[in-house]
This record gives sequence, C-alpha cells and structure tokens, in this order.
Amino acid sequence: MTKKIAVIVGSLRKESLNRKMAHELISLAPPNLAMEIVEIGQMPLYNQDLDQDPPTAWKEFKERMKGMDGVLFVTPEYNRSVPSVLKNAIDVGSRPYGQSIWDKKPAAVMSVSPSALGGFGANHHLRQSLVFLNVPTMQQPEAYIGGAAQLFDDKGKLNNDSTREFVRKFMQAYGEWVERQTPSPR
Amino acid sequence: MTKKIAVIVGSLRKESLNRKMAHELISLAPPNLAMEIVEIGQMPLYNQDLDQDPPTAWKEFKERMKGMDGVLFVTPEYNRSVPSVLKNAIDVGSRPYGQSIWDKKPAAVMSVSPSALGGFGANHHLRQSLVFLNVPTMQQPEAYIGGAAQLFDDKGKLNNDSTREFVRKFMQAYGEWVERQTPSPR
Repeated sequence: MTKKIAVIVGSLRKESLNRKMAHELISLAPPNLAMEIVEIGQMPLYNQDLDQDPPTAWKEFKERMKGMDGVLFVTPEYNRSVPSVLKNAIDVGSRPYGQSIWDKKPAAVMSVSPSALGGFGANHHLRQSLVFLNVPTMQQPEAYIGGAAQLFDDKGKLNNDSTREFVRKFMQAYGEWVERQTPSPR
Repeated sequence: MTKKIAVIVGSLRKESLNRKMAHELISLAPPNLAMEIVEIGQMPLYNQDLDQDPPTAWKEFKERMKGMDGVLFVTPEYNRSVPSVLKNAIDVGSRPYGQSIWDKKPAAVMSVSPSALGGFGANHHLRQSLVFLNVPTMQQPEAYIGGAAQLFDDKGKLNNDSTREFVRKFMQAYGEWVERQTPSPR
C-alpha cells in the first residue's frame, strides 16, 4: 500500500538549495511513497501559553501531519545547528505533552549545504530531537550533501548522474525503511 | 566600568521558570554588570530573502544588541535541544553574513528545566552554535538547573539558600569572565 510521506524543508528562501533537493527527492522516490511538501514557514513561534487556544497555522499543520505515514527532513545548517524554522515545526508538532504528531513516524534526514561539511551539525542536532520524539529514523545511508550550490542546473534539477544515483538509492532505502517500520497486517 | 549585558530568555511562557531565574540572575549580579532582559518573541522566523528589507522587529533587536557588551542565555530545553524562539534569535542576529551581532560578545549559558537532566541537551546545542559564532562562552561553572519547578516561591523568588548561593557565584564568575574578555585600555 502506498505510504503518505511529508517532506519538510528547513529553509524559507525562495531559491533554497534544500527546496530544489526536496523536489528531486520526490521525483526519484520509489512507487510505494506518495510524497508532498508540507510548509512550515507560516507558523508562529512555539509558546506553551498558546496551547490552550492554538493559532490556526499550528492546528492546520498538526492536522495535516496526522494523516502522514512518515516524514522526510531536508535541511540546511544555520550556525552549526537546525534552522529556527525547522526547530519550530518540531516544537509545535511535539506539544501539548502526550499529543505529539511525530511519535513513531518513520523518518529520514538529508542535510544540504553549500559548505564542505554538508550540514553535519544540523543533521545530528535534529537526530537528537528525533530520539526524544520516538521517531524511528533511518540510520544508513547518511546524507550530508556538501558543495550543493554546484549541484543544480538553472532549472533547479540535479546536474550530475552520481548525485542523482545517490538520491535514488537514498529514497529506495527510505522506502524500505518505511515498510519495515509499519506493522504488517495479520 | 560597568558592562551592559543582555539577558536572553529561551521561553515565551508567562510563568516561565527561566524568566523567574533570569530575574534572580539579574538581582544577584555583581556591580560591574548592568543587566537587562532583551525580548525575542516578537521576531518573525529567519528567512534569508528578508535580509534585503528586514522586518522592524529584527532591526530593533539587532540595534539593541549592538549596544551590549555581553549576553547571558537562560534557556529551557525543548525536545533535547534549543527552543525555536531562542534559535531564531541566534539565526536572525547572525545574519547577513559578516554582520553578526554575536561576534566576540562574552557569554554565559544557564539551562533551567523541571526535569532531572537540567537542560543539558539545550545547553550544549547552544554552545555548538556559539563556537561557530565566535562568542567567548564561560566554561565553568557550568549551570544545568534541574528540578526547577521546586525552586521558586509563589512570588517567583528562589526559595532556598543553596541555589541562591550557586546563582551568585555563577554571576560572580561571569562578571570576571566579561572583564577578562574585554581588552584593557593602554
């Protein structure tokens, strides 16, 4: 059965390398995954006092995420950590206590960066939050995409076969990961 | 000479334990530090596209921070990492590239949490960003304040001498740290 996967992009920039990569991840996904980008930039900063009467954008995000079978994070690194916009989606989705929308959703993480380090800092800070949130996260292949400013053509498509092949294998592995985390019907 | 220190609180909750602690840190600070809370909850999520025509709240925050000689972070932990509101202040203040307001400002970090772990995850994720941002951060004493829901009376003041004494020593050390990081006049 097809699994619905949310793609969450950790950058709001219009020409974001991560958004370009997200579109490539979607187009190279295996057929068992139905993937769609879920936007996170419209959500007010998390404030526990608002839990009693949450902003509409929080409610819509959580409602949409509840219908998803998994989540793929594609993120840049800001100051050696997770961008605030992505951390905000994590925080909003995790609350109120006991009503997290993240719990048990099979995930994968790809960091994409112009730098040589490939967003390693953001990737692993995010993984630390995902441990707490009980999000079964694909371990291998890891994906730290460095030098990303050179990877796309002027239409925003990957410009070389080796990256495309890596992305395809990454998505193949994620598709298998999602299946493995889903209890089979008796 | 007195040093102006920004106190940045990583929680927006009105009854925030971290805000209570911030007020205690201020009242127990040594006389060489003039401390004031700088609010961060009003700032839109960081988006690089807005750097060309930044939101007023970003401009006001950066302008105010430029007048500061140091910064004290008091933060809870959300999902084993830095709360989005604090990461957002870090990200907004760090950009555009080359115009960071954090560079070389002597800092200290205290994490405050109801849990037994005392916000260790948030404290050290923040420290990783501060390395990148070239913020000289006091190493000792470390401050992971756990069980914080039991530490304040109904007026929001610390209810026991040992915590008060720790906070006083922490601020004393920070005062010395700030002086040490400031080049002396010739």
